[in-house]
Amino acid sequence: MEDMEYMGMAVRLAQKGCGLVNPNPMVGAVLVKEGRIIGEGYYERYGALHAERNAILNCRESPEGTTLYVTLEPCCHHGKTPPCTEAILQSGIRRVVIGSHDPNPLVKGKGIKQLREQGIEVVEDVLKEECDKLNEVFFHFIQTGKPYVVMKYAMTMDGKTAAYTGASKWITGEDARRRVHEDRRRYSAVMVGIGTVLADDPLLTCRLENGRNPLRIICDTQLHTPLDSRIVLTASKVPTVIATSSMEREAHQPYIKAGCRILPVSQKDGHLDLARLMAKLGEEKIDSVLLEGGGILNWSALQAGIVNKVQAYLAPKLLGGAAGKTPVAGIGVPSPEAGYFLTNSTITCLGEDILIESEVQPHVYRNH
Amino acid sequence: MEDMEYMGMAVRLAQKGCGLVNPNPMVGAVLVKEGRIIGEGYYERYGALHAERNAILNCRESPEGTTLYVTLEPCCHHGKTPPCTEAILQSGIRRVVIGSHDPNPLVKGKGIKQLREQGIEVVEDVLKEECDKLNEVFFHFIQTGKPYVVMKYAMTMDGKTAAYTGASKWITGEDARRRVHEDRRRYSAVMVGIGTVLADDPLLTCRLENGRNPLRIICDTQLHTPLDSRIVLTASKVPTVIATSSMEREAHQPYIKAGCRILPVSQKDGHLDLARLMAKLGEEKIDSVLLEGGGILNWSALQAGIVNKVQAYLAPKLLGGAAGKTPVAGIGVPSPEAGYFLTNSTITCLGEDILIESEVQPHVYRNH
Repeated sequence: MEDMEYMGMAVRLAQKGCGLVNPNPMVGAVLVKEGRIIGEGYYERYGALHAERNAILNCRESPEGTTLYVTLEPCCHHGKTPPCTEAILQSGIRRVVIGSHDPNPLVKGKGIKQLREQGIEVVEDVLKEECDKLNEVFFHFIQTGKPYVVMKYAMTMDGKTAAYTGASKWITGEDARRRVHEDRRRYSAVMVGIGTVLADDPLLTCRLENGRNPLRIICDTQLHTPLDSRIVLTASKVPTVIATSSMEREAHQPYIKAGCRILPVSQKDGHLDLARLMAKLGEEKIDSVLLEGGGILNWSALQAGIVNKVQAYLAPKLLGGAAGKTPVAGIGVPSPEAGYFLTNSTITCLGEDILIESEVQPHVYRNH
Repeated sequence: MEDMEYMGMAVRLAQKGCGLVNPNPMVGAVLVKEGRIIGEGYYERYGALHAERNAILNCRESPEGTTLYVTLEPCCHHGKTPPCTEAILQSGIRRVVIGSHDPNPLVKGKGIKQLREQGIEVVEDVLKEECDKLNEVFFHFIQTGKPYVVMKYAMTMDGKTAAYTGASKWITGEDARRRVHEDRRRYSAVMVGIGTVLADDPLLTCRLENGRNPLRIICDTQLHTPLDSRIVLTASKVPTVIATSSMEREAHQPYIKAGCRILPVSQKDGHLDLARLMAKLGEEKIDSVLLEGGGILNWSALQAGIVNKVQAYLAPKLLGGAAGKTPVAGIGVPSPEAGYFLTNSTITCLGEDILIESEVQPHVYRNH
């Protein structure tokens, strides 16, 4: 019970690194001596000291003989910093309680093994679920080399993302919209299709105080993004990528001049090859993408098999309208059993709105 | 605290009358003497003894000096049975704890007043919210004379009630479908539009053991219901009403012969006048309607202002499809602020599905 409480503190410390450590994991650490917390630390930003070292550095008394609570298995390899296992051994820590295992092939159980070989007591899997959840992005990225993609949309209780007129301001209330801005800070990039740019002319920035802006990505097969769109007009200040299959160098020039980067991506079935785009983003260490597209891009993303998680914001209103827009359009599957199945759903109330988050299961149905 | 516990028991007793007492309220009663429950009762079926009388009859010792817990204010008028206030006074009960007030204009505080005038201690509003919830149907019906209408639909997490092919079997899982059958037992009638009859050929019966079938109502303006539809074929066994504007007596005959009742309802804007239909059903003591219609009937019902509650079953899957069906169709409202607003939402997990139930606020937007 006590172990779980201290690990809970370590989880909350880890969360402070949210949006600042990508593509590395969030990690928190707490040092406890005879029931007293004597040191705390977390991984504060990409390339900085690891959580364990920060906790040791912040110690108010000698760490000799203490228990270390750490959300992720300590590293045992030389990365940007020397291995944390070394720091643990040197500090005289006697017991290490761990949340998640590190799926990084360079670590993966070796950190725990090293500690045990040196006579340190190691307890594993404490608050494992919370600790794993904390780093779903990192775990996916380190194992696949591709960004974790979160498909986000807001719809009414009758499944509409916009009225028949196209009007969509606002489906959800302030709490839900604030949460979207928190996620724009959390994830490395935000992505929309050209359809959304033409319909809504969004900015896609993070409007929180001290909020880091995500990389903005427009999927624009034919390069139709208006040069006077708000995204292009702000591209000199906010990193912006236009992924396109258009190879006309001359057409690229005004976008490049405005500060956009043109990312050439081949076509597949007449659309941008989204799997290829994700592979390219992964090579550039983009570990996560918040997909804020409309129904057409969402359908393409599902078909391409790149979506890991769905965030559905549900607003307590009904719009009606056979011509209203829904979150996933395209052709669709022919029957419910051919659908894309979601799992591990969690429900969060945000003001009067409801957020349902689910993981996407691998799509096995092959008959469409 | 003790009062709330005993009232909780009374609520659970009351629920045993679910689907059997309409259009009367569900009521439960518990008699407590020096910390011992000495009698329990509930309103068991329409026209039977009231809960208070059943509790007194079931007493294992004299009710003299006891406390009565009853979910609804005791009646003080001569209905099918003599007033419960009399029975309470005669039994020597000393204290009465009440959940809901009876909005029936024949009672409405008079029951409480009578008891107090006779020197009985009365405590009001204990577990009021639960007790009120228990009888939302009765409270609506007694005050408006019209049925309480529950709009029920099952949709995927991307807002589809059917794939682009029309296939809708099955959106939700077994637990959710079982819950629908419980509601068919709970509410007095179930209503669909001719579109649903033609598309799905449903039975609309309650498939629970000992489940009472609801009255089945088809909204069929032009009288197009197929004579070989499953509803018509079973109309001799399960009460069935076809509400229609068709006045051709000859066309009515085969339906009547099959056991259906034809209910003539005038038209409004080219459709069945649903408000008029509800008034007629209310006159026939139909206190509640489970609306299992498709998108077109749902839109008409919202526009007619007859919907009191929305039950949205959400299934964890995505179908996609710009041509997929959504729960509310028709023209729709032009913008989110013109929508129909929902309030007091509750969330229930049913297997892997999620049920969101909300009340419909009066629609105030007038600009469409």
